[in-house]
Amino acid sequence: MPESIPADSVGLVEPQTAHFAEPLQLFSERSLPEFELIYETYGQLNANASNAILICHALSGHHHAAGYHSMEDKKPGWWDNAIGPGKAIDTHRFFVVSLNNLGGCHGSTGPTSIDPKSGKIYGPDFPLVTVQDWVNSQALLADRLGISQWAAVIGGSLGGMQALQWSIAYPERISHALVIASAPKLSAQNIAFNEVARQAIRSDEDFQDGRYLDQQVMPRRGLKLARMIGHITYLSDDSMREKFGREMRGGKLKYGYDVDFEVESYLRYQGQTFSETFDANSYLLMTKALDYFDPAREHDDNLASTLKLAQCKFLLISFTTDWRFAPERSREIVDALLEARKQVSYLEVDAPQGHDAFLMPIPRYMEAFQAYMNRIADEVNQ
Amino acid sequence: MPESIPADSVGLVEPQTAHFAEPLQLFSERSLPEFELIYETYGQLNANASNAILICHALSGHHHAAGYHSMEDKKPGWWDNAIGPGKAIDTHRFFVVSLNNLGGCHGSTGPTSIDPKSGKIYGPDFPLVTVQDWVNSQALLADRLGISQWAAVIGGSLGGMQALQWSIAYPERISHALVIASAPKLSAQNIAFNEVARQAIRSDEDFQDGRYLDQQVMPRRGLKLARMIGHITYLSDDSMREKFGREMRGGKLKYGYDVDFEVESYLRYQGQTFSETFDANSYLLMTKALDYFDPAREHDDNLASTLKLAQCKFLLISFTTDWRFAPERSREIVDALLEARKQVSYLEVDAPQGHDAFLMPIPRYMEAFQAYMNRIADEVNQ
Repeated sequence: MPESIPADSVGLVEPQTAHFAEPLQLFSERSLPEFELIYETYGQLNANASNAILICHALSGHHHAAGYHSMEDKKPGWWDNAIGPGKAIDTHRFFVVSLNNLGGCHGSTGPTSIDPKSGKIYGPDFPLVTVQDWVNSQALLADRLGISQWAAVIGGSLGGMQALQWSIAYPERISHALVIASAPKLSAQNIAFNEVARQAIRSDEDFQDGRYLDQQVMPRRGLKLARMIGHITYLSDDSMREKFGREMRGGKLKYGYDVDFEVESYLRYQGQTFSETFDANSYLLMTKALDYFDPAREHDDNLASTLKLAQCKFLLISFTTDWRFAPERSREIVDALLEARKQVSYLEVDAPQGHDAFLMPIPRYMEAFQAYMNRIADEVNQ
Repeated sequence: MPESIPADSVGLVEPQTAHFAEPLQLFSERSLPEFELIYETYGQLNANASNAILICHALSGHHHAAGYHSMEDKKPGWWDNAIGPGKAIDTHRFFVVSLNNLGGCHGSTGPTSIDPKSGKIYGPDFPLVTVQDWVNSQALLADRLGISQWAAVIGGSLGGMQALQWSIAYPERISHALVIASAPKLSAQNIAFNEVARQAIRSDEDFQDGRYLDQQVMPRRGLKLARMIGHITYLSDDSMREKFGREMRGGKLKYGYDVDFEVESYLRYQGQTFSETFDANSYLLMTKALDYFDPAREHDDNLASTLKLAQCKFLLISFTTDWRFAPERSREIVDALLEARKQVSYLEVDAPQGHDAFLMPIPRYMEAFQAYMNRIADEVNQ
């Protein structure tokens, strides 16, 4: 619990919900008859609505990116170190919108919602949504908020894919795309890790073909395994070595299957905690959105031709020890943007934390991020 | 099925079993009252028993390293491309011994064997065995075969750890240690992957606390997941890209949880096949043997001091794209051997296949391997 709210925090925030009564056509050729998006905003929208920033979340993220929901909160939102007064995304200058994506499990319409057609929980009947679908739903939210053009769309990992998709799907509605620790599409290895995670969930007896809520059970073992696998890919080999090394729990080998090494205990704890708070169908759906993202697919697999559609400027950031979306994946995007003659800045940050680095307050990262955002703020306030 | 046995094959081979009636003291402070080792031999032991080679297997390996068990066999032993007349390990010159380790599930005493004390299947009561225990049991097999000193002990991955352990546990009984695609101990990341595999097996409802054979069930879902995870770490990102890329099965996205990408189908198949042939308790035990291996632990974590015990010569080989046991892990051993003033040759092979490269007939690898082995053969036949 924060004894008092820090001065550079956006403070206490309250999520809002936007209801959309019109059907949303999806790329799967299915549609949602109606839907809701939960979101938070930080800072003030200026008179000509030119200072709006959209934050897109990653695999297991949500709308609560900054500030606190109550004085009892132990931790602030997931990107509080980047969003706030005087921070990289300065809420004195910007109006920041952060939402939970469709298919999520934190308040937006998703597998745990009631299907208005049947009156029952969607569960596995909730349609697969793609990055394109998310961006379309975010555009409807922008309309609702009176934002015709984002000063910037910003995201890390899967969030960066949404920023990239914005640049080509709504070129006239975005001034800057900030694509952090991301990739133009998953590699076979990325897909392989996602597939193991899905198999872990789907082969849990309590998954019940996705109807676990109806059966009042939860596929916790599967979700725990999925998160453990994911977690390994978020950390670098170096950071695991530094954090845990071969440190033993209890100081000696137990010659059994209890925890011997600290890293085992850490992973089990992370997996267990996650499995108690995240919805399995949402997790499955998010991994598929990752697998499916491949904007060049409809342009003869030519990323440069694809990005010719964009009109915004770009900032790409990668982290040296990130092996989930390594710097070369960001450079693929940078190279394609250069070939498409777009304006792009690129920063490769030397950081030991692996993929997770994009969430960390690493000085060089935050300074470059802030400098870029200040330039955008100056443009907006001209 | 081989239409005929190739000329450079060791031909049809028959496994043999050695029974040891004396108790074997283990590092866990437990013991086995008696045990059996299944093994194969290729080539002829010379008059002074100086041309014997021991092959040590990796995580899921076994004694059948070369040749065929019958004319109906579809494939030869797992290292047939390295063992045979005129091959790297030339069976015209060497007498090769290849065994299934204690705790395995291919014929040596392990969790699927009957515990002579209870008359029941060991199952989870089979003690955890370590690399040191394996080497001790291999020394007893050497005694039985009249081999006082190995011309070489050779292994890849976990097999390389056994070769390293031989060099320090029985310095006078080994002339050369060939340590391929291995490491002096697992990293936190290596342990993390093993732990997820173990949790996958142990959280399968059919695991039944390891007594699945008594219950006539098999924890196939868990073992399948464990193998899928392992398999990803055996392949390089590059080789997965080359092998599968983002190739789709059926040519289009299905917007469901059936296989979309070829890599998913491949992994599911590999996992399924493995889960039908390998014992879950054996798999658990082998991963623990990997985690526990750390010969420097008893020497103040000083690998050079540890290796001072060795008297043999060393060949270390690593593969550029191996990220399970990357070249730097081999170089740790090389550096420690140099510091300990031992004779060591080191080869880093440029290979796209990842960890699996150690099993492949890569020309540069096989040529260097053969040249080194020929030198040993010349020494032996002096």
